[in-house]
Amino acid sequence: MYLTKSFIPILKNNPSEAKIKSHQLMLRVGMIKQSSAGIYSWLPLGFKIMKKIEQIVREEQNKIGVQEILMPTIQSSEIWKESGRYDDYGEEMLRIKDRQDREMLYGPTNEELVTDIFRASVKSYKSLPQLLYHIQWKFRDEVRPRFGIMRCREFYMKDAYSFDISDEEAFFSYNKFFLSYLRTFKRLDLTAIPMAADTGPIGGNLSHEFIILADTGESKIYTDKEIFKVNSDDTKVEKKSLEELRTKYENFYAVTDEKFNKKEFEDKVSEKNRLITKGIEVGHIFYFGDKYSKPMGASVDLPGGKKDFVKMGSYGVGVSRLVGAIIEAKYDDKKEVMKWPISIAPYELSIIPMINKNDNSALEKANYIYNELIKNNIETIIDDTDENLSSKIKKMNLIGAPFQIIIGKQAEGDLLEFKETGQESKKLKLEEVIKIIKKEKAKN
Amino acid sequence: MYLTKSFIPILKNNPSEAKIKSHQLMLRVGMIKQSSAGIYSWLPLGFKIMKKIEQIVREEQNKIGVQEILMPTIQSSEIWKESGRYDDYGEEMLRIKDRQDREMLYGPTNEELVTDIFRASVKSYKSLPQLLYHIQWKFRDEVRPRFGIMRCREFYMKDAYSFDISDEEAFFSYNKFFLSYLRTFKRLDLTAIPMAADTGPIGGNLSHEFIILADTGESKIYTDKEIFKVNSDDTKVEKKSLEELRTKYENFYAVTDEKFNKKEFEDKVSEKNRLITKGIEVGHIFYFGDKYSKPMGASVDLPGGKKDFVKMGSYGVGVSRLVGAIIEAKYDDKKEVMKWPISIAPYELSIIPMINKNDNSALEKANYIYNELIKNNIETIIDDTDENLSSKIKKMNLIGAPFQIIIGKQAEGDLLEFKETGQESKKLKLEEVIKIIKKEKAKN
Repeated sequence: MYLTKSFIPILKNNPSEAKIKSHQLMLRVGMIKQSSAGIYSWLPLGFKIMKKIEQIVREEQNKIGVQEILMPTIQSSEIWKESGRYDDYGEEMLRIKDRQDREMLYGPTNEELVTDIFRASVKSYKSLPQLLYHIQWKFRDEVRPRFGIMRCREFYMKDAYSFDISDEEAFFSYNKFFLSYLRTFKRLDLTAIPMAADTGPIGGNLSHEFIILADTGESKIYTDKEIFKVNSDDTKVEKKSLEELRTKYENFYAVTDEKFNKKEFEDKVSEKNRLITKGIEVGHIFYFGDKYSKPMGASVDLPGGKKDFVKMGSYGVGVSRLVGAIIEAKYDDKKEVMKWPISIAPYELSIIPMINKNDNSALEKANYIYNELIKNNIETIIDDTDENLSSKIKKMNLIGAPFQIIIGKQAEGDLLEFKETGQESKKLKLEEVIKIIKKEKAKN
Repeated sequence: MYLTKSFIPILKNNPSEAKIKSHQLMLRVGMIKQSSAGIYSWLPLGFKIMKKIEQIVREEQNKIGVQEILMPTIQSSEIWKESGRYDDYGEEMLRIKDRQDREMLYGPTNEELVTDIFRASVKSYKSLPQLLYHIQWKFRDEVRPRFGIMRCREFYMKDAYSFDISDEEAFFSYNKFFLSYLRTFKRLDLTAIPMAADTGPIGGNLSHEFIILADTGESKIYTDKEIFKVNSDDTKVEKKSLEELRTKYENFYAVTDEKFNKKEFEDKVSEKNRLITKGIEVGHIFYFGDKYSKPMGASVDLPGGKKDFVKMGSYGVGVSRLVGAIIEAKYDDKKEVMKWPISIAPYELSIIPMINKNDNSALEKANYIYNELIKNNIETIIDDTDENLSSKIKKMNLIGAPFQIIIGKQAEGDLLEFKETGQESKKLKLEEVIKIIKKEKAKN
């Protein structure tokens, strides 16, 4: 792809309205465009990244056996009246009257609708567990939308729901998602820590937020540094193994602001291990038993002949928000260098040829390399503008393909100037470049 | 995948509320569930099919160089006031007030929003043409939603937009989509005929509807039978080749109701070739010049130094609607047999073992075959219920995997009972079955 043919509207400078670095970068390289307060269009660069994140989220859900469905954005108020949340939800819910004057709303979350789907067809414990998810747009009418897509009104979210026969089985489902989220964030090259959290308007009494550290985070967190050493590499999708994983994490103090207790923190964590910092929530899981199934009458036949309300949990990952969160975690705004994890990079490599009026040789070389890379399934962009090399490199450092090939004046046989974005360059043959990138991709 | 583990809620009989066969089948095999009037959730079976259709639509857009973006569902009324359509659009537009009392709406289409994106960043003819598309939910508040997802309120649509410097260039863009749509529908195993059509609320004076024949169609069509012989196999994405293709089609009389003229029809079409029948619209393309760019001030610098408003077209395919349209075209509701084109089938093959209380051998054999097929990337479902063979076959004929393997009482060495869904069975070895399916898939 030639840069001049792509719809990537780049700004020379940081837009003044953006206060945090993800918002700055996303506007600067034309990943998004605001269409109204807290509502954005995703332009090709941002769209590519978000779609790759979505696909990783999807694959990790499928791996633990969750089935994908798709619920609509517009819901009837009826089911929200059944659950009792229609009045509770307040002004964040976008309420709508249709042409027949029926009360509708734009779903801020889907506990009611999925419970309605479940109760219509599942009647017996034999069909449990049921794990369902969808990836769909949500709307929350924030009173002060800000920080670009980090606190916006229309956002893209994966939300999953579990249905089980007992608390014990429900915890098993909960723990599957616990593992799945750790795996998901790891594939996005993020270190996310599960922290005990408040349940808010979703309800229930067990909940974890998955938090990544970032100075610009909105959540204040208190934790034991040692928790960063825990990992889920050997965990299996089996009851005991999953319980052990959760215990390993829960042995360390790790909470968000609302759950913070100074005495407990100081008792449990040695002074040198205390970490008080800020973070960004990238996932949130809840267990709330029969909070929805009971008022909505979602019950199943039990083995003995009795009936009981199903035990439910819900599990959210902000897909659009992750784009911003990853920028907050990875973007060096002092040096103006963004290097996307290769698993979700919009392009894997950018070719930066020096183009003079009367000399097309660098562009021709770029085309040749491009074709070789494409044959090897390496997604590549060529900066074919006639700007000077240094401003091209600056721009490509913002677009953030993790690797670059620079084609300057002097050709040195078949050695190329190859860089990891933001690092020093090396002289390598094209075959070696291809090998490095393939190896990097295979890790994911 | 075991059927008992899938969330596929099957009904014993046709639901009485469904009047056309796509609506009947989709409810019967649990592809969708209505959540409110004209609004549906997509359950796993329907979701899989819709996603595969979406992917084919996407690939064919990418092939002609259209770039994917994603515009939000909720739009501000401002841009619709600029274009003059805010009042024109009437009650089909779902109008919303947010908590700040701003006038918003759920986008029924995106000409205004994409023009706003374009004008914010494209300033010169040098950046033209620009071809952009997105696949996003739309809402049209139909007064009488009916026929399931065929005439619903919230629907999933691919809409593309072209921006060009002159009529001539704009027709080139138009013709690219003309070809792209023919290719898209062909990959979905549909014969879609482009027909001269009215432009309706989109506007402009050049427009084609792509229509597939179906008795249950809502569009009345008048055409020359010979048009079915035209094909686009040799057409290239070049001006001349594309023009020839359009001329080949336009040489035959083919119009929808609104464009029908009896005299012209009878003059142009010999009696034996006249076809008056019904069809379903699956795509619609429009050229409308500066209808939006002029009132919204979307102009570019021309080569000479002057400015002009860009010439635009728009191009829609109903992705969710196609699911229903394909059922209308392919489902034999007398025999109760649905055979999905393999390119979009929810499963490529279903294994139907006879399961008795004290004999698991057929299920074990099914598991073995399943694993072999999965290794060969053949998507397979096993009906592991304990119903009798004939009701299982009946059910699998509705779910519509294009191939079946039936495992009855008598094992005959390594020969399997293999069927194209709805056809007679043959005795084949597993390797032969795999070969047949792979060959079928490779065609697409």
